[in-house]
Amino acid sequence: MQFISEQRLDDDSVLEREFTLGEIPGILWTPAPESTPAPLILLGHPGGLRTMYPRVAARARHAVTAGFAAATIELPGGGDRPRSAVTEQARTDLHRALKAGEPVTDDIVDRLILPLVDQAVPEWQATLDALLALPEIGGPVGYSGGVISIGTRLAVVEPRISAAVLFAGSFVPRSIIEEARQVTIPLHVLLQWDDEGNDRQMALDLFDAFGSKEKALNANMGGHTGVPQHAGEEGNRFFARHLK
Amino acid sequence: MQFISEQRLDDDSVLEREFTLGEIPGILWTPAPESTPAPLILLGHPGGLRTMYPRVAARARHAVTAGFAAATIELPGGGDRPRSAVTEQARTDLHRALKAGEPVTDDIVDRLILPLVDQAVPEWQATLDALLALPEIGGPVGYSGGVISIGTRLAVVEPRISAAVLFAGSFVPRSIIEEARQVTIPLHVLLQWDDEGNDRQMALDLFDAFGSKEKALNANMGGHTGVPQHAGEEGNRFFARHLK
Repeated sequence: MQFISEQRLDDDSVLEREFTLGEIPGILWTPAPESTPAPLILLGHPGGLRTMYPRVAARARHAVTAGFAAATIELPGGGDRPRSAVTEQARTDLHRALKAGEPVTDDIVDRLILPLVDQAVPEWQATLDALLALPEIGGPVGYSGGVISIGTRLAVVEPRISAAVLFAGSFVPRSIIEEARQVTIPLHVLLQWDDEGNDRQMALDLFDAFGSKEKALNANMGGHTGVPQHAGEEGNRFFARHLK
Repeated sequence: MQFISEQRLDDDSVLEREFTLGEIPGILWTPAPESTPAPLILLGHPGGLRTMYPRVAARARHAVTAGFAAATIELPGGGDRPRSAVTEQARTDLHRALKAGEPVTDDIVDRLILPLVDQAVPEWQATLDALLALPEIGGPVGYSGGVISIGTRLAVVEPRISAAVLFAGSFVPRSIIEEARQVTIPLHVLLQWDDEGNDRQMALDLFDAFGSKEKALNANMGGHTGVPQHAGEEGNRFFARHLK
Protein backbone atom coordinates (compact mmCIF):
# COMPACT_ATOMS: atom_id res chain seq x y z
CA MET A 1 0.00 0.00 0.00
CA GLN A 2 1.40 3.32 -1.08
CA PHE A 3 0.05 6.69 -0.04
CA ILE A 4 0.09 9.10 -2.98
CA SER A 5 -1.60 12.24 -1.58
CA GLU A 6 -2.93 13.64 1.65
CA GLN A 7 -5.15 16.48 2.75
CA ARG A 8 -6.83 17.59 5.94
CA LEU A 9 -10.59 18.23 6.05
CA ASP A 10 -13.18 19.56 8.49
CA ASP A 11 -10.94 21.99 10.41
CA ASP A 12 -8.04 19.54 10.33
CA SER A 13 -10.02 16.88 12.20
CA VAL A 14 -10.00 14.39 9.30
CA LEU A 15 -6.93 13.15 7.43
CA GLU A 16 -7.79 11.98 3.89
CA ARG A 17 -5.13 9.99 2.05
CA GLU A 18 -5.30 8.51 -1.43
CA PHE A 19 -3.42 5.26 -1.85
CA THR A 20 -2.76 2.51 -4.33
CA LEU A 21 -2.65 -1.16 -3.52
CA GLY A 22 -0.99 -2.69 -6.54
CA GLU A 23 -3.13 -1.29 -9.35
CA ILE A 24 -6.16 -0.57 -7.19
CA PRO A 25 -6.74 3.04 -6.17
CA GLY A 26 -8.29 3.76 -2.79
CA ILE A 27 -8.87 6.41 -0.14
CA LEU A 28 -8.36 6.25 3.62
CA TRP A 29 -9.93 8.67 6.11
CA THR A 30 -8.66 8.72 9.71
CA PRO A 31 -9.15 10.97 12.73
CA ALA A 32 -6.48 13.67 12.96
CA PRO A 33 -4.68 14.05 15.22
CA GLU A 34 -4.48 10.30 15.80
CA SER A 35 -5.37 9.00 19.19
CA THR A 36 -5.93 5.32 19.94
CA PRO A 37 -6.21 2.91 17.00
CA ALA A 38 -9.66 3.41 15.47
CA PRO A 39 -12.17 0.74 14.48
CA LEU A 40 -12.54 0.60 10.70
CA ILE A 41 -15.48 0.88 8.33
CA LEU A 42 -15.00 -0.30 4.74
CA LEU A 43 -17.15 1.84 2.44
CA GLY A 44 -18.70 0.03 -0.50
CA HIS A 45 -20.05 1.85 -3.56
CA PRO A 46 -21.24 0.92 -7.06
CA GLY A 47 -17.93 1.74 -8.78
CA GLY A 48 -16.54 4.92 -10.32
CA LEU A 49 -14.85 6.41 -7.29
CA ARG A 50 -14.18 9.78 -8.91
CA THR A 51 -17.90 10.28 -9.66
CA MET A 52 -18.93 8.78 -6.33
CA TYR A 53 -16.40 10.83 -4.34
CA PRO A 54 -18.79 13.47 -2.90
CA ARG A 55 -21.18 10.88 -1.49
CA VAL A 56 -18.52 8.43 -0.31
CA ALA A 57 -16.45 11.20 1.28
CA ALA A 58 -19.52 12.53 3.10
CA ARG A 59 -20.14 9.05 4.54
CA ALA A 60 -16.45 8.77 5.46
CA ARG A 61 -16.40 12.11 7.26
CA HIS A 62 -19.50 11.17 9.26
CA ALA A 63 -17.78 7.92 10.20
CA VAL A 64 -14.60 9.71 11.31
CA THR A 65 -16.66 12.19 13.34
CA ALA A 66 -18.19 9.17 15.08
CA GLY A 67 -14.72 7.86 15.94
CA PHE A 68 -14.06 5.43 13.11
CA ALA A 69 -11.47 5.16 10.37
CA ALA A 70 -13.01 4.66 6.92
CA ALA A 71 -11.62 3.35 3.66
CA THR A 72 -12.72 2.57 0.15
CA ILE A 73 -11.23 1.12 -3.03
CA GLU A 74 -12.21 1.34 -6.68
CA LEU A 75 -14.27 -1.62 -7.90
CA PRO A 76 -13.02 -3.92 -10.67
CA GLY A 77 -14.07 -2.25 -13.94
CA GLY A 78 -14.79 1.06 -12.18
CA GLY A 79 -13.05 4.39 -12.87
CA ASP A 80 -9.87 3.84 -14.87
CA ARG A 81 -9.63 0.14 -14.03
CA PRO A 82 -9.86 -2.28 -16.98
CA ARG A 83 -13.39 -3.12 -18.07
CA SER A 84 -14.48 -6.76 -18.28
CA ALA A 85 -16.17 -7.68 -21.57
CA VAL A 86 -18.53 -10.06 -19.72
CA THR A 87 -19.66 -7.39 -17.27
CA GLU A 88 -20.06 -4.74 -19.97
CA GLN A 89 -22.20 -7.09 -22.07
CA ALA A 90 -24.32 -7.93 -19.00
CA ARG A 91 -24.78 -4.22 -18.24
CA THR A 92 -25.89 -3.60 -21.83
CA ASP A 93 -28.35 -6.51 -21.59
CA LEU A 94 -29.66 -5.20 -18.25
CA HIS A 95 -30.31 -1.71 -19.57
CA ARG A 96 -31.95 -3.12 -22.69
CA ALA A 97 -34.27 -5.29 -20.56
CA LEU A 98 -35.15 -2.40 -18.21
CA LYS A 99 -35.80 -0.04 -21.12
CA ALA A 100 -38.02 -2.60 -22.86
CA GLY A 101 -39.89 -3.26 -19.61
CA GLU A 102 -38.83 -6.91 -19.83
CA PRO A 103 -37.97 -9.05 -16.81
CA VAL A 104 -34.33 -9.02 -15.77
CA THR A 105 -33.38 -12.67 -16.16
CA ASP A 106 -31.28 -14.67 -13.71
CA ASP A 107 -28.73 -15.08 -16.49
CA ILE A 108 -28.22 -11.32 -16.84
CA VAL A 109 -27.96 -10.85 -13.07
CA ASP A 110 -25.45 -13.71 -12.73
CA ARG A 111 -23.24 -12.36 -15.53
CA LEU A 112 -23.43 -8.82 -14.12
CA ILE A 113 -22.74 -9.59 -10.48
CA LEU A 114 -20.94 -12.91 -9.92
CA PRO A 115 -17.62 -12.16 -11.70
CA LEU A 116 -17.58 -8.78 -9.93
CA VAL A 117 -18.02 -10.44 -6.55
CA ASP A 118 -15.37 -13.06 -7.34
CA GLN A 119 -12.83 -10.35 -8.12
CA ALA A 120 -13.80 -7.64 -5.63
CA VAL A 121 -13.92 -9.74 -2.47
CA PRO A 122 -10.24 -10.83 -2.51
CA GLU A 123 -9.31 -7.22 -3.27
CA TRP A 124 -11.20 -6.01 -0.21
CA GLN A 125 -9.44 -8.71 1.83
CA ALA A 126 -6.00 -7.62 0.58
CA THR A 127 -6.95 -4.02 1.41
CA LEU A 128 -7.96 -5.13 4.88
CA ASP A 129 -4.57 -6.84 5.35
CA ALA A 130 -2.80 -3.60 4.46
CA LEU A 131 -5.07 -1.31 6.51
CA LEU A 132 -4.93 -3.40 9.67
CA ALA A 133 -1.11 -3.27 9.49
CA LEU A 134 -1.27 0.52 10.01
CA PRO A 135 -0.77 1.59 13.62
CA GLU A 136 -3.64 4.12 13.46
CA ILE A 137 -6.17 1.44 12.61
CA GLY A 138 -7.38 -1.18 15.05
CA GLY A 139 -10.48 -3.27 14.91
CA PRO A 140 -13.19 -4.32 14.84
CA VAL A 141 -14.12 -3.89 11.17
CA GLY A 142 -17.47 -3.10 9.59
CA TYR A 143 -18.55 -3.11 5.94
CA SER A 144 -20.97 -0.44 4.80
CA GLY A 145 -22.72 0.15 1.54
CA GLY A 146 -23.41 -0.86 -1.93
CA VAL A 147 -23.26 -3.88 -4.18
CA ILE A 148 -24.96 -5.98 -1.53
CA SER A 149 -23.69 -9.20 -3.10
CA ILE A 150 -20.10 -8.13 -2.37
CA GLY A 151 -21.00 -7.29 1.22
CA THR A 152 -22.76 -10.62 1.58
CA ARG A 153 -19.82 -12.68 0.26
CA LEU A 154 -17.40 -10.66 2.43
CA ALA A 155 -19.53 -11.34 5.50
CA VAL A 156 -19.36 -15.07 4.71
CA VAL A 157 -15.65 -15.45 3.96
CA GLU A 158 -13.95 -12.71 6.00
CA PRO A 159 -14.00 -13.36 9.75
CA ARG A 160 -12.45 -9.97 10.52
CA ILE A 161 -15.71 -8.26 9.53
CA SER A 162 -17.88 -7.99 12.63
CA ALA A 163 -20.97 -6.13 11.45
CA ALA A 164 -22.35 -4.72 8.20
CA VAL A 165 -24.71 -2.01 6.97
CA LEU A 166 -25.81 -3.32 3.58
CA PHE A 167 -27.60 -1.34 0.87
CA ALA A 168 -30.09 -3.45 -1.08
CA GLY A 169 -29.73 -1.32 -4.19
CA SER A 170 -28.62 -3.80 -6.84
CA PHE A 171 -29.86 -7.01 -8.40
CA VAL A 172 -28.93 -10.17 -6.48
CA PRO A 173 -28.02 -13.56 -8.01
CA ARG A 174 -29.96 -16.49 -6.57
CA SER A 175 -26.70 -18.18 -5.56
CA ILE A 176 -25.87 -15.16 -3.37
CA ILE A 177 -29.25 -15.55 -1.63
CA GLU A 178 -28.15 -19.10 -0.82
CA GLU A 179 -24.76 -17.88 0.45
CA ALA A 180 -26.58 -15.38 2.66
CA ARG A 181 -27.79 -18.23 4.86
CA GLN A 182 -24.21 -18.60 6.11
CA VAL A 183 -23.96 -14.99 7.30
CA THR A 184 -24.07 -14.74 11.09
CA ILE A 185 -22.83 -11.21 11.89
CA PRO A 186 -25.24 -8.43 12.91
CA LEU A 187 -26.72 -6.72 9.84
CA HIS A 188 -28.51 -3.45 9.20
CA VAL A 189 -30.03 -3.54 5.69
CA LEU A 190 -31.15 -0.37 3.90
CA LEU A 191 -33.74 -0.65 1.14
CA GLN A 192 -35.20 2.13 -0.99
CA TRP A 193 -38.78 0.98 -1.53
CA ASP A 194 -39.05 2.29 -5.11
CA ASP A 195 -35.45 1.74 -6.18
CA GLU A 196 -35.33 1.57 -9.96
CA GLY A 197 -32.10 -0.47 -10.00
CA ASN A 198 -33.39 -3.25 -7.83
CA ASP A 199 -35.96 -6.00 -7.47
CA ARG A 200 -37.85 -5.37 -4.23
CA GLN A 201 -39.04 -8.94 -3.75
CA MET A 202 -35.51 -10.25 -4.28
CA ALA A 203 -34.20 -7.77 -1.70
CA LEU A 204 -36.82 -9.03 0.78
CA ASP A 205 -35.89 -12.64 -0.05
CA LEU A 206 -32.23 -11.84 0.55
CA PHE A 207 -33.02 -10.18 3.87
CA ASP A 208 -35.07 -13.20 4.88
CA ALA A 209 -32.22 -15.56 3.92
CA PHE A 210 -29.49 -13.98 6.05
CA GLY A 211 -28.62 -16.38 8.87
CA SER A 212 -27.84 -13.59 11.34
CA LYS A 213 -29.73 -13.61 14.63
CA GLU A 214 -29.60 -9.84 14.68
CA LYS A 215 -30.66 -8.24 11.43
CA ALA A 216 -32.79 -5.17 10.75
CA LEU A 217 -34.42 -4.04 7.53
CA ASN A 218 -34.78 -0.31 7.19
CA ALA A 219 -36.88 0.60 4.16
CA ASN A 220 -37.56 4.17 3.12
CA MET A 221 -39.48 5.81 0.33
CA GLY A 222 -37.94 6.94 -2.88
CA GLY A 223 -35.42 5.91 -5.46
CA HIS A 224 -31.86 4.66 -5.42
CA THR A 225 -30.18 7.88 -4.32
CA GLY A 226 -32.90 9.04 -1.94
CA VAL A 227 -31.71 7.43 1.32
CA PRO A 228 -32.82 9.96 3.96
CA GLN A 229 -30.26 11.47 6.27
CA HIS A 230 -31.82 9.91 9.38
CA ALA A 231 -31.39 6.43 7.83
CA GLY A 232 -27.68 7.09 7.45
CA GLU A 233 -27.52 8.21 11.07
CA GLU A 234 -29.24 5.00 12.17
CA GLY A 235 -26.52 3.08 10.31
CA ASN A 236 -23.88 4.97 12.27
CA ARG A 237 -25.63 4.14 15.55
CA PHE A 238 -25.73 0.48 14.48
CA PHE A 239 -21.93 0.53 14.01
CA ALA A 240 -21.47 2.34 17.32
CA ARG A 241 -23.39 -0.49 19.04
CA HIS A 242 -21.41 -3.26 17.36
CA LEU A 243 -17.90 -1.97 16.70
CA LYS A 244 -17.14 -0.16 19.96
CA MET B 1 -62.73 13.05 31.86
CA GLN B 2 -62.28 12.36 35.53
CA PHE B 3 -58.92 11.79 37.19
CA ILE B 4 -59.17 9.02 39.79
CA SER B 5 -55.58 8.61 41.01
CA GLU B 6 -52.18 10.18 40.65
CA GLN B 7 -48.59 9.27 41.42
CA ARG B 8 -45.17 10.66 40.64
CA LEU B 9 -42.51 8.49 38.98
CA ASP B 10 -38.83 8.73 38.04
CA ASP B 11 -37.68 11.08 40.81
CA ASP B 12 -40.88 13.11 40.55
CA SER B 13 -40.19 13.97 36.90
CA VAL B 14 -43.27 12.14 35.57
CA LEU B 15 -46.86 12.61 36.73
CA GLU B 16 -49.00 9.51 36.09
CA ARG B 17 -52.76 9.91 36.41
CA GLU B 18 -55.44 7.31 35.90
CA PHE B 19 -58.68 8.65 34.48
CA THR B 20 -62.05 7.54 33.22
CA LEU B 21 -63.79 8.93 30.18
CA GLY B 22 -67.35 7.74 30.58
CA GLU B 23 -66.83 4.02 31.08
CA ILE B 24 -63.41 3.89 29.46
CA PRO B 25 -60.40 3.71 31.79
CA GLY B 26 -57.18 5.40 30.74
CA ILE B 27 -53.82 6.71 31.92
CA LEU B 28 -52.12 10.03 31.27
CA TRP B 29 -48.42 10.70 31.75
CA THR B 30 -47.12 14.29 31.73
CA PRO B 31 -43.85 16.01 32.59
CA ALA B 32 -43.74 17.20 36.21
CA PRO B 33 -43.39 19.98 37.04
CA GLU B 34 -45.34 21.24 34.06
CA SER B 35 -43.69 23.71 31.79
CA THR B 36 -45.04 24.65 28.38
CA PRO B 37 -47.91 22.59 26.92
CA ALA B 38 -46.40 19.32 25.69
CA PRO B 39 -46.99 17.59 22.35
CA LEU B 40 -48.96 14.39 22.87
CA ILE B 41 -48.36 10.77 21.94
CA LEU B 42 -51.33 8.38 22.04
CA LEU B 43 -50.08 4.92 23.02
CA GLY B 44 -51.84 2.01 21.35
CA HIS B 45 -51.70 -1.54 22.71
CA PRO B 46 -53.50 -4.83 22.04
CA GLY B 47 -55.94 -4.48 24.96
CA GLY B 48 -55.78 -5.54 28.60
CA LEU B 49 -54.25 -2.43 30.08
CA ARG B 50 -53.60 -3.97 33.49
CA THR B 51 -51.52 -6.77 31.95
CA MET B 52 -49.90 -4.42 29.45
CA TYR B 53 -49.14 -1.76 32.09
CA PRO B 54 -45.39 -2.45 32.53
CA ARG B 55 -44.66 -2.20 28.80
CA VAL B 56 -47.01 0.71 28.09
CA ALA B 57 -45.76 2.66 31.13
CA ALA B 58 -42.14 2.12 30.05
CA ARG B 59 -42.97 3.56 26.62
CA ALA B 60 -44.81 6.45 28.27
CA ARG B 61 -41.91 7.29 30.58
CA HIS B 62 -39.49 7.32 27.62
CA ALA B 63 -41.88 9.65 25.82
CA VAL B 64 -42.12 12.01 28.81
CA THR B 65 -38.33 12.01 29.17
CA ALA B 66 -38.20 13.09 25.52
CA GLY B 67 -40.54 16.01 26.26
CA PHE B 68 -43.94 14.56 25.31
CA ALA B 69 -47.14 13.88 27.17
CA ALA B 70 -48.44 10.33 26.64
CA ALA B 71 -51.84 8.77 27.11
CA THR B 72 -53.59 5.47 26.62
CA ILE B 73 -57.08 4.04 27.02
CA GLU B 74 -58.40 0.52 27.42
CA LEU B 75 -59.58 -1.08 24.17
CA PRO B 76 -63.20 -2.16 23.66
CA GLY B 77 -63.43 -5.70 25.09
CA GLY B 78 -60.10 -5.30 26.95
CA GLY B 79 -59.58 -5.48 30.72
CA ASP B 80 -62.93 -5.19 32.53
CA ARG B 81 -64.73 -3.70 29.54
CA PRO B 82 -67.67 -5.73 28.12
CA ARG B 83 -66.64 -8.44 25.69
CA SER B 84 -68.22 -8.56 22.24
CA ALA B 85 -69.57 -11.98 21.25
CA VAL B 86 -68.52 -11.39 17.62
CA THR B 87 -64.93 -10.57 18.56
CA GLU B 88 -64.66 -13.47 21.04
CA GLN B 89 -65.92 -15.91 18.40
CA ALA B 90 -63.44 -14.51 15.86
CA ARG B 91 -60.60 -14.86 18.39
CA THR B 92 -61.57 -18.48 19.02
CA ASP B 93 -61.65 -19.13 15.27
CA LEU B 94 -58.25 -17.45 14.83
CA HIS B 95 -56.58 -19.54 17.53
CA ARG B 96 -58.14 -22.70 16.14
CA ALA B 97 -56.84 -21.91 12.64
CA LEU B 98 -53.34 -21.07 13.91
CA LYS B 99 -53.21 -24.22 16.06
CA ALA B 100 -54.33 -26.40 13.14
CA GLY B 101 -51.80 -24.71 10.85
CA GLU B 102 -54.66 -23.62 8.61
CA PRO B 103 -54.73 -20.30 6.74
CA VAL B 104 -56.31 -17.39 8.61
CA THR B 105 -59.20 -16.49 6.34
CA ASP B 106 -60.25 -12.95 5.41
CA ASP B 107 -63.55 -13.68 7.13
CA ILE B 108 -61.87 -14.37 10.48
CA VAL B 109 -59.66 -11.27 10.19
CA ASP B 110 -62.60 -9.04 9.27
CA ARG B 111 -64.70 -10.29 12.21
CA LEU B 112 -61.76 -9.92 14.60
CA ILE B 113 -60.60 -6.46 13.59
CA LEU B 114 -63.28 -4.38 11.86
CA PRO B 115 -65.81 -4.06 14.73
CA LEU B 116 -62.90 -3.26 17.05
CA VAL B 117 -61.69 -0.47 14.73
CA ASP B 118 -65.24 0.88 14.34
CA GLN B 119 -65.62 1.18 18.11
CA ALA B 120 -62.08 2.12 19.17
CA VAL B 121 -61.46 4.99 16.75
CA PRO B 122 -64.31 7.25 17.98
CA GLU B 123 -63.20 6.46 21.54
CA TRP B 124 -59.66 7.64 20.76
CA GLN B 125 -61.14 10.77 19.16
CA ALA B 126 -63.24 11.51 22.26
CA THR B 127 -60.14 10.97 24.39
CA LEU B 128 -58.25 13.39 22.19
CA ASP B 129 -61.00 16.01 22.65
CA ALA B 130 -60.67 15.68 26.43
CA LEU B 131 -56.86 15.62 26.50
CA LEU B 132 -56.39 18.64 24.24
CA ALA B 133 -58.70 20.62 26.55
CA LEU B 134 -56.13 20.23 29.36
CA PRO B 135 -53.78 23.22 29.70
CA GLU B 136 -50.71 20.99 30.13
CA ILE B 137 -51.22 19.36 26.72
CA GLY B 138 -50.66 21.11 23.43
CA GLY B 139 -50.08 19.66 20.01
CA PRO B 140 -49.12 18.25 17.67
CA VAL B 141 -50.35 14.71 18.30
CA GLY B 142 -48.79 11.37 17.36
CA TYR B 143 -50.18 7.85 17.53
CA SER B 144 -47.82 5.06 18.54
CA GLY B 145 -48.24 1.36 18.71
CA GLY B 146 -50.36 -1.61 18.27
CA VAL B 147 -53.46 -2.77 16.45
CA ILE B 148 -52.19 -1.23 13.25
CA SER B 149 -55.69 -1.18 11.75
CA ILE B 150 -56.80 1.25 14.49
CA GLY B 151 -53.77 3.45 13.85
CA THR B 152 -54.46 3.38 10.13
CA ARG B 153 -58.14 4.38 10.46
CA LEU B 154 -57.20 7.11 12.96
CA ALA B 155 -54.61 8.47 10.54
CA VAL B 156 -57.30 8.63 7.85
CA VAL B 157 -60.16 10.20 9.82
CA GLU B 158 -58.45 12.29 12.52
CA PRO B 159 -56.70 15.39 11.14
CA ARG B 160 -55.24 16.26 14.56
CA ILE B 161 -52.84 13.29 14.27
CA SER B 162 -49.67 14.50 12.57
CA ALA B 163 -47.40 11.44 12.57
CA ALA B 164 -47.57 7.79 13.61
CA VAL B 165 -45.30 4.96 14.69
CA LEU B 166 -47.31 1.87 13.77
CA PHE B 167 -46.62 -1.69 14.93
CA ALA B 168 -47.45 -4.27 12.26
CA GLY B 169 -48.16 -6.94 14.84
CA SER B 170 -51.72 -7.98 14.07
CA PHE B 171 -53.71 -9.33 11.14
CA VAL B 172 -55.02 -6.69 8.75
CA PRO B 173 -58.36 -6.75 6.91
CA ARG B 174 -58.11 -6.16 3.17
CA SER B 175 -60.46 -3.18 3.45
CA ILE B 176 -57.99 -1.52 5.84
CA ILE B 177 -55.23 -1.97 3.24
CA GLU B 178 -57.49 -0.03 0.86
CA GLU B 179 -58.09 2.68 3.49
CA ALA B 180 -54.32 2.95 3.96
CA ARG B 181 -54.01 4.54 0.52
CA GLN B 182 -55.69 7.66 1.99
CA VAL B 183 -53.06 8.06 4.74
CA THR B 184 -50.74 10.99 4.05
CA ILE B 185 -48.99 11.69 7.38
CA PRO B 186 -45.37 10.61 7.98
CA LEU B 187 -45.22 6.98 9.18
CA HIS B 188 -42.63 4.84 10.92
CA VAL B 189 -43.74 1.20 10.75
CA LEU B 190 -42.25 -1.47 13.03
CA LEU B 191 -42.43 -5.11 11.94
CA GLN B 192 -41.17 -8.15 13.81
CA TRP B 193 -40.00 -10.42 10.97
CA ASP B 194 -41.09 -13.68 12.65
CA ASP B 195 -44.14 -12.36 14.48
CA GLU B 196 -46.43 -15.29 15.23
CA GLY B 197 -49.53 -13.09 15.44
CA ASN B 198 -49.13 -11.60 12.02
CA ASP B 199 -48.99 -12.27 8.30
CA ARG B 200 -45.71 -10.87 7.01
CA GLN B 201 -46.80 -10.49 3.40
CA MET B 202 -49.93 -8.65 4.49
CA ALA B 203 -47.84 -6.31 6.63
CA LEU B 204 -45.62 -5.58 3.61
CA ASP B 205 -48.71 -5.04 1.43
CA LEU B 206 -50.10 -2.62 4.02
CA PHE B 207 -46.79 -0.73 4.16
CA ASP B 208 -46.76 -0.53 0.37
CA ALA B 209 -50.34 0.77 0.33
CA PHE B 210 -49.89 3.74 2.67
CA GLY B 211 -50.20 6.94 0.65
CA SER B 212 -47.66 8.84 2.76
CA LYS B 213 -44.72 10.38 0.95
CA GLU B 214 -42.59 9.80 4.03
CA LYS B 215 -42.85 6.29 5.40
CA ALA B 216 -40.20 3.96 6.79
CA LEU B 217 -40.39 0.24 7.46
CA ASN B 218 -38.21 -0.92 10.31
CA ALA B 219 -38.14 -4.72 10.51
CA ASN B 220 -36.28 -6.60 13.21
CA MET B 221 -35.77 -10.24 14.05
CA GLY B 222 -37.82 -12.14 16.52
CA GLY B 223 -41.37 -12.57 17.66
CA HIS B 224 -44.17 -10.26 18.65
CA THR B 225 -42.70 -9.04 21.95
CA GLY B 226 -39.08 -8.90 20.80
CA VAL B 227 -38.90 -5.32 19.49
CA PRO B 228 -35.30 -4.32 20.30
CA GLN B 229 -34.66 -1.27 22.45
CA HIS B 230 -32.88 0.59 19.64
CA ALA B 231 -35.99 0.26 17.45
CA GLY B 232 -38.05 1.97 20.15
CA GLU B 233 -35.47 4.74 20.34
CA GLU B 234 -35.67 5.23 16.58
CA GLY B 235 -39.43 5.65 16.99
CA ASN B 236 -38.83 8.38 19.56
CA ARG B 237 -36.44 10.15 17.19
CA PHE B 238 -39.08 9.93 14.46
CA PHE B 239 -41.57 11.70 16.75
CA ALA B 240 -38.95 14.28 17.73
CA ARG B 241 -38.46 15.08 14.02
CA HIS B 242 -42.19 15.39 13.31
CA LEU B 243 -43.91 16.61 16.47
CA LYS B 244 -41.53 19.34 17.63
